[in-house]
Amino acid sequence: MDEFELIRRFFSRHSDSPLLVAGVGDDGAVLRPPAGRELVTVIDTMVAGTHFPTCMDARDIGYRIVAINLSDIAAMGGIPRWMTLALTLVDADEAWLDEFATGLYEAAGEWGVVLAGGDTTKGEQLVVSVQMSGDLAPGTALYRSGAKAGDTIYVTGTLGDAAAGLGRFAEGESRDYLARRFARPTARVAAGRALAGIAHAAIDVSDGLVADLAKVLEASGAGAELDVHRLPLSQELLDAVGREQALQHAMGGGDDYELCFTVPAPLLPAGIAPEVTAIGRIVPDAGLVCRDGDSVVPFDDTGYRHFR
Amino acid sequence: MDEFELIRRFFSRHSDSPLLVAGVGDDGAVLRPPAGRELVTVIDTMVAGTHFPTCMDARDIGYRIVAINLSDIAAMGGIPRWMTLALTLVDADEAWLDEFATGLYEAAGEWGVVLAGGDTTKGEQLVVSVQMSGDLAPGTALYRSGAKAGDTIYVTGTLGDAAAGLGRFAEGESRDYLARRFARPTARVAAGRALAGIAHAAIDVSDGLVADLAKVLEASGAGAELDVHRLPLSQELLDAVGREQALQHAMGGGDDYELCFTVPAPLLPAGIAPEVTAIGRIVPDAGLVCRDGDSVVPFDDTGYRHFR
Repeated sequence: MDEFELIRRFFSRHSDSPLLVAGVGDDGAVLRPPAGRELVTVIDTMVAGTHFPTCMDARDIGYRIVAINLSDIAAMGGIPRWMTLALTLVDADEAWLDEFATGLYEAAGEWGVVLAGGDTTKGEQLVVSVQMSGDLAPGTALYRSGAKAGDTIYVTGTLGDAAAGLGRFAEGESRDYLARRFARPTARVAAGRALAGIAHAAIDVSDGLVADLAKVLEASGAGAELDVHRLPLSQELLDAVGREQALQHAMGGGDDYELCFTVPAPLLPAGIAPEVTAIGRIVPDAGLVCRDGDSVVPFDDTGYRHFR
Repeated sequence: MDEFELIRRFFSRHSDSPLLVAGVGDDGAVLRPPAGRELVTVIDTMVAGTHFPTCMDARDIGYRIVAINLSDIAAMGGIPRWMTLALTLVDADEAWLDEFATGLYEAAGEWGVVLAGGDTTKGEQLVVSVQMSGDLAPGTALYRSGAKAGDTIYVTGTLGDAAAGLGRFAEGESRDYLARRFARPTARVAAGRALAGIAHAAIDVSDGLVADLAKVLEASGAGAELDVHRLPLSQELLDAVGREQALQHAMGGGDDYELCFTVPAPLLPAGIAPEVTAIGRIVPDAGLVCRDGDSVVPFDDTGYRHFR
């Protein structure tokens, strides 16, 4: 099976999207962008053994690389539309490719995203990049830089599950709730769309809440107070590791792909309320103060950074 | 140096393109597409040791990954506009990164392409992917599938230089004409733009003329006669390897990134003529016949295919 046959067999599913003029199979794809909109574009790479355990199912690898790109689109407030795939394989295992493609199309299909093109190469290590584009109304993109003193800080979903879930793989468990939260993050596309043009700042929590919030604060020239006792923790996480470790995961663990955003409280879109939690506020003075009830708690910036 | 510092230092050059609303440094970039145009999107990966010699200069690696994406945009007839970068590094060597970024911006700058975003990761092997987008007038994209019997087949530039040039690296020579033709392919963007809406079919010669022309013939349901004695060969190539080997490289070697296109002869755009050569014609019956003067010459499909 050469690379052309591989692309034909696994990555050429038909799409009837009106936003796609021509897809996989030529030198490039031709897209028809919605009129009068801005585009948002993102790209994310996963390296086997660095970003996910080498034992992870191919189907989950395919799902996850799409989900983390959807998450970036969501953090910008965009509607995801098209994606391209750069896949570097050690070998062309057909069963693996079939599963990988199934997961990839599954995640893309949840939001109607079209695989428009790609490139398949051979290397010494599995490296998967997806580039995704979407659209939004001009001027409504969400940036890290707009947080203002007085804003309430919110997060979607629960935090810390993915960090604990990653640990589950090392224990040989890949199917329980926490492991699934790592392998199949929930991209908060609907929340991002509801917040476009409304939230002052947004980021997706990929490196850890403290590290990612710090990026918002630096870009916005502001500080924050975090109410640690308000951090949303799943019952599964609490049961598995207890409150103290759960908070460590929630603050310092990465890979949750929840949205963290700031908004003047009265502007919070009504429909978004059930899945978001207020966890603190933006303050004028730089720095991050974490409070657990009445006491200030110390913390480390334990966000994950390559090359450090 | 962590990944954020790395991106700030090497990949955050300012752009004043009116087509870029927000670039590197957030969860995604925001683009302002030209009104009333279709978009073309491509992605290409280079793996060290597979797609280029590991001894190749970082500056040439950066130049080449952009040039081969420009070539795909050209083959579609588009105007290149924006690109994103997925860079998997073995380590974060500052001198290497500085050179790589210099070559990357150099190639992009030749066509005013903006680096809009990227992702930098750590792996066991250097893997570089660039995704590029451009735009074109609706309905003018060039495909592989439109060749018609009676069309003349043209190529831009000269063929076979890159295949011989790749061999030069193995001999420890990376600076002569042929080696430069491998390391710094000339993306035929102007030719592609001139042909948009005019040529019946187009492809860029990355896997070798015979292999790439075969893709056009298959997609178009047609055949071709190739006049081997008309293939454009550089004097440097002829001097280096002689005519027989030069023809082998021209027909079977890859990496030239010249455009091969078919057009009814009267429609050839006037300005394009000096840099293109007529090399054959499309015929109704499937298959490819190669003629060298009056004799039919045998050939192999020696195009490069991963995983074969």
